[in-house]
Formats: sequence, C-alpha cells, structure tokens
Amino acid sequence: MSDFHRAASGGLSPGELEAVLRQVGAERYHNRHPYHHRMTGGDLSKGELQAWALNRYCYQAVIPRKDAAILTHAEDPAFRAEWRKRIEDHDGEDGWSGGIARWLHLATSLGVDADAVKSQRLALPATRFAVGAYLAFCFERSLLEAVASSLTELFSPVIINERVPAMLAKYDYVTADTLAYFTRRPEQAARDSDFALAYVRKHADTPERQQQVIDALVFKCDILWAMLDALQHAYGEGGGNIPPGAFRPEA
Amino acid sequence: MSDFHRAASGGLSPGELEAVLRQVGAERYHNRHPYHHRMTGGDLSKGELQAWALNRYCYQAVIPRKDAAILTHAEDPAFRAEWRKRIEDHDGEDGWSGGIARWLHLATSLGVDADAVKSQRLALPATRFAVGAYLAFCFERSLLEAVASSLTELFSPVIINERVPAMLAKYDYVTADTLAYFTRRPEQAARDSDFALAYVRKHADTPERQQQVIDALVFKCDILWAMLDALQHAYGEGGGNIPPGAFRPEA
Repeated sequence: MSDFHRAASGGLSPGELEAVLRQVGAERYHNRHPYHHRMTGGDLSKGELQAWALNRYCYQAVIPRKDAAILTHAEDPAFRAEWRKRIEDHDGEDGWSGGIARWLHLATSLGVDADAVKSQRLALPATRFAVGAYLAFCFERSLLEAVASSLTELFSPVIINERVPAMLAKYDYVTADTLAYFTRRPEQAARDSDFALAYVRKHADTPERQQQVIDALVFKCDILWAMLDALQHAYGEGGGNIPPGAFRPEA
Repeated sequence: MSDFHRAASGGLSPGELEAVLRQVGAERYHNRHPYHHRMTGGDLSKGELQAWALNRYCYQAVIPRKDAAILTHAEDPAFRAEWRKRIEDHDGEDGWSGGIARWLHLATSLGVDADAVKSQRLALPATRFAVGAYLAFCFERSLLEAVASSLTELFSPVIINERVPAMLAKYDYVTADTLAYFTRRPEQAARDSDFALAYVRKHADTPERQQQVIDALVFKCDILWAMLDALQHAYGEGGGNIPPGAFRPEA
C-alpha cells in the first residue's frame, strides 16, 4: 500500500502525476472491495443486491448537484459547456430520462419500490453521510480538487466490465434491461474522464496542487469504498447489522 | 421499532414531545450497539479499543466547532452565554486543558501515538463522513434543529455508567486515569441537556417543528450508531475489513 500523503513532495511531470493517480485507482478503487467480489461471484442475496441499488441511488441522485457545485466555481465558459454535459447525462431531457431514471429502473427491476428508492429514507445513514461529504467537497474545495475527485471515472470501465457480464451470468432475475444504465456509461465516462484528466494534468502545476489532486482522488475512492463497507456490514452475513430504520429485505 | 417519521403529525404537548424524544433514545441510542456491548463485556481487543479512541477523537474534536455553528444562529445573548460553556468545557482555558485534551489522554493511555490521533489521518473515512455530516447539520439547519440534535446528551449518563465500571473491571490496562474524561462529563451533560430540553420543549410549538426536532434527534443517533458500525466492520473479527490507509493496530 502506497503512502499517497507525500507523493508529490518533489514535483512531478504531468505523466508522472497521471501515473500516481492511476496507482491510487489500482490500490483504492472499489473494484477491490469484497462486496464487489461477492457481487461478481454471484454470492449476493437478492436482498443484498436490492440494498446495493437502493443505497447507490443516493449517490446517483447527487451527481448533477455536485456537478452544479463545480460549475459554480468555473469561470471559463468553455469549461462549463463541457462540464454541463454531465448534468444532462444524469437528468436527461426532462429530469427523468437520464442516468438517474435508469438507475431507478435498475432498482425497481430488482423489486424495490420506486417511492422507497426516490425518498432515500431507507438508505443507510453511512451512505447519506458519504454522499453528503462528496457534495460538500465539490462546494468547498477548489475547482481543481473537485475536478480531480471525478477521476474515479478513469477506472469505471474496469468495474462495469467486471460487473455487467457477471451479473447477467450469475443472477437469473437480472436481465440486460435491468442493467440498461451501464450501456450508456462507458462512452460518457471516457469522454468525461479524458477531459478531466487533461484539465488536471495542465493545472496541477505545483507540488502543492499535485498533492491536492492526489488527495482528492484518494478522498473519492474513500467515498465509494465506505459505501460498500456500509452495505457489507449491514447486509452481509444475513443482515444482522442493519441499523435502526434502514431498508430490510423481505425474508 | 417506532416510525418516528410521523410522530408529531397531530401536535404534541411539551410532555408528550419529551416522551417521544426519550423513546427515540431508548430505541436508537448507541448504548444498544453491539460494539458497545462488546466493550462492556470485556470482549474488545486492545487494538479495537485503540481504534475506538482514535476514531471517537474526530467527534470530540468537532464539538466546539459545531457549538460555534450553533452560536452563529443564536440571536439571544442569554442563550449564547449558556451555550458557550460547551466550548469552554471542551477546549479548556488554553485549548488543551478541556475535554478534547482529556480524550487525547484517553487515547494515548491506550498506547496510540498522540500525533496520529490529533492528525485524524488514520481515522476511518466513514467516521470523518459522519462527523462532517454532524457539523454541516449544525451550520445548515435551524437553531431549533441544531439544539435538538444535542439531546443525545440526555442519554449519555446511561452509557457512561455502563462503560466506565465495565472498562475498569474488564481491561487490566485501563485505569481511572485513562478514563478521566468521563468523570467531568455527567455533570456537564446534565446541565447542558436540561437547558437544551427546556429550549426544545418551549420552541417546538407546532407539529412541523416538533417533527423537525424528532428528526434531528434520530439523525444524531444515526451519527453515533454509524460510527460504531464503521468500527465494528473494520476492526471486528480480527480487522480483516480495515479500509485502505486507516489505522492498523500492531499485531
């Protein structure tokens, strides 16, 4: 395990910085988490998949808001024109024809009630705290740090390519229709992460800023990891640790 | 398990509201959490106690800041004069002679390095997200809601009376000096919670405000519960789920 807290102390070239960022992903992205491994191994109960979809909805639902927070810091119209595509992707034409609606469809296809998902009331408190920390980060930190925190998208093709074929093969109630969300994401993520990576390579031009972007990506990996930790703790091993008031799968 | 989401729909007398708030504590305060039960049962390893102290420090350290956030909303000088005692209690005369210093002493007495504790760098991300959510709540919500979120102190004498004698009896390396933090707390907490409860009883004078204070106390119980969930998941069962970068007890 690398100590990323002093990774940029000497100043890095753009290529070296990118290599450190990719190393962060290799060590800390949530495709290394046991819950993901249990998902792709076919070992999750239907209740655990439902809990995953219901909790992850909170993350999906906040994406356009965190991207709007980033727009509030962006003074360059060309940057904003590029970045606002992310909001359009998730909200769609009318708010309910983009990525959030497709994630809701994923959850309801797994048998979770749409209103329960949308209200977010049954999500784990730990999920809400993690998602809230992500939104606050994009409000409070510099534009550069907020952009860098989006760079987990560099690694999302990996996890999607692990997740989708495995889910179709291992869970007979999961269909291509269930997972329609993921068919759009790789192309969008590649476009978005290319832009964000080029921005970070260009603007992280001091050791201090380089350390900030590394820390931002570590932070974002912590968010995604903590969300799976919370699911594993609450719903793993029969659900004996579900906190008061959270979603309880039907027996 | 009660559904506190509609508890105040009809309007409650001050006494009825207090009864609902006490019911929230009876059902959701973290003295019901398995990690607390393992602590009082003498079943935590030294590493688990160290992790508890190190992570809980993040919560202790934010208390004066959340109380300052509450002061920013308080227009009544008499309210502020009462509430600022909380900041004095935790920071002490010079910043390091109050409750935070005593908590640091607790952690170092258990063998954790003081700088590691104070930097908060080795705390679980989930702990930081929960503590951050608490601080943000006190900034963003109404004065009434922020005051109500402090009412977990109503129940702290219960958990302290369970914790302290059990820790002294069950862990031979824990002494009265280790636990000096707790000798001051019951008197402070009683004074503070009496004031906060009287404030809430007086100002939660519509069904909507009553529901807000109930929700605020549920939220705060969720914070404390999520912190123990994170410890249990990471450090229970031999520490196999410690997330990347977090505190690792010596073998």
